[in-house]
Amino acid sequence: METFEVHTSRREELLRVTSALQELVDAKGWRDGALVVYCPHTTAALTINEAADPDVAADLVMALSRLLPREAGYKHVEGNSDSHVKTTLVGPSQMLIVSGGRIQLGTWQGVFLCEWDGPRNRKIWAQWLGQ
Amino acid sequence: METFEVHTSRREELLRVTSALQELVDAKGWRDGALVVYCPHTTAALTINEAADPDVAADLVMALSRLLPREAGYKHVEGNSDSHVKTTLVGPSQMLIVSGGRIQLGTWQGVFLCEWDGPRNRKIWAQWLGQ
Amino acid sequence: METFEVHTSRREELLRVTSALQELVDAKGWRDGALVVYCPHTTAALTINEAADPDVAADLVMALSRLLPREAGYKHVEGNSDSHVKTTLVGPSQMLIVSGGRIQLGTWQGVFLCEWDGPRNRKIWAQWLGQ
Repeated sequence: METFEVHTSRREELLRVTSALQELVDAKGWRDGALVVYCPHTTAALTINEAADPDVAADLVMALSRLLPREAGYKHVEGNSDSHVKTTLVGPSQMLIVSGGRIQLGTWQGVFLCEWDGPRNRKIWAQWLGQ
Repeated sequence: METFEVHTSRREELLRVTSALQELVDAKGWRDGALVVYCPHTTAALTINEAADPDVAADLVMALSRLLPREAGYKHVEGNSDSHVKTTLVGPSQMLIVSGGRIQLGTWQGVFLCEWDGPRNRKIWAQWLGQ
Repeated sequence: METFEVHTSRREELLRVTSALQELVDAKGWRDGALVVYCPHTTAALTINEAADPDVAADLVMALSRLLPREAGYKHVEGNSDSHVKTTLVGPSQMLIVSGGRIQLGTWQGVFLCEWDGPRNRKIWAQWLGQ
């Protein structure tokens, strides 16, 4: 298992990690298979969505904030239950197909860490599964 | 990596792709492992849910439309931010267990492409991971 | 493919399954790879979230109930469309990284079956993918 760290700068934001993942695939020489990309935190998640227009990521943050307000009579006393719920809805991992050493993404897709309770240092884990 | 195409006919709908996936597994002779099924689009997703009663798919489309209205003060100018958010919530891929050449699904389960901004032609990618 | 069963006791609850999964990994002697954990039901899902404070799981159940009320003019006549929608949003499977025979989880993470239409007996399937 490989691990790398990213740094977020706001309570809620989407951070692009596609390049870091492709660099890992390059460095390891992985060719054909799939990469399990995994976020070991309970208030941050991983998604794949449009990387061309940053407004898409901003709208995603806004839309989830509207669905899940920060204060809503939660029991958990740390004040971040909204972050935990968002993490479950988005999910802790993504599967990336790798062919010929390249992470296969659609034209507009990028991989993002979703920070729901930052700013923090966050780890991302990656496990290679060869074909 | 294998790829196939489906055609959607409405802005929002769930399209069954289970048979197409099993046919791919049959044609390739894949026996025991897992299939990464991946949607390379940013306004379409993949889910697994009830395939017996089509009302379940219709309710799913309606429920997500209520949660995420098409117009809601989004920044992204293409008018499909709701589609992008739904895509992240449902997710771009599914892992299917394959045993003895059969995709393993529960009694009521089917695999669906979730079209959130159609009608369009959509691609689905599949990567085999043998045990 | 391995299978085990769990028993839920309420209509909606999160049930910890981390120990059962690690026991399976131990019994099988799986060392390095990934485990596909899969829920073959259409009204139950799998998530990974905080296992330390049970209030987090309780807040998650409450937040999803608010977003998706049980009665909301659904077409499906079984009265559990909310359960189906929650299942799609949370997702039917999780990928767990296994290194040196240990399921790799973050400090606060645990694996949960999300029961959305119990109480019931539920199956969980697991497929090993070695590196």
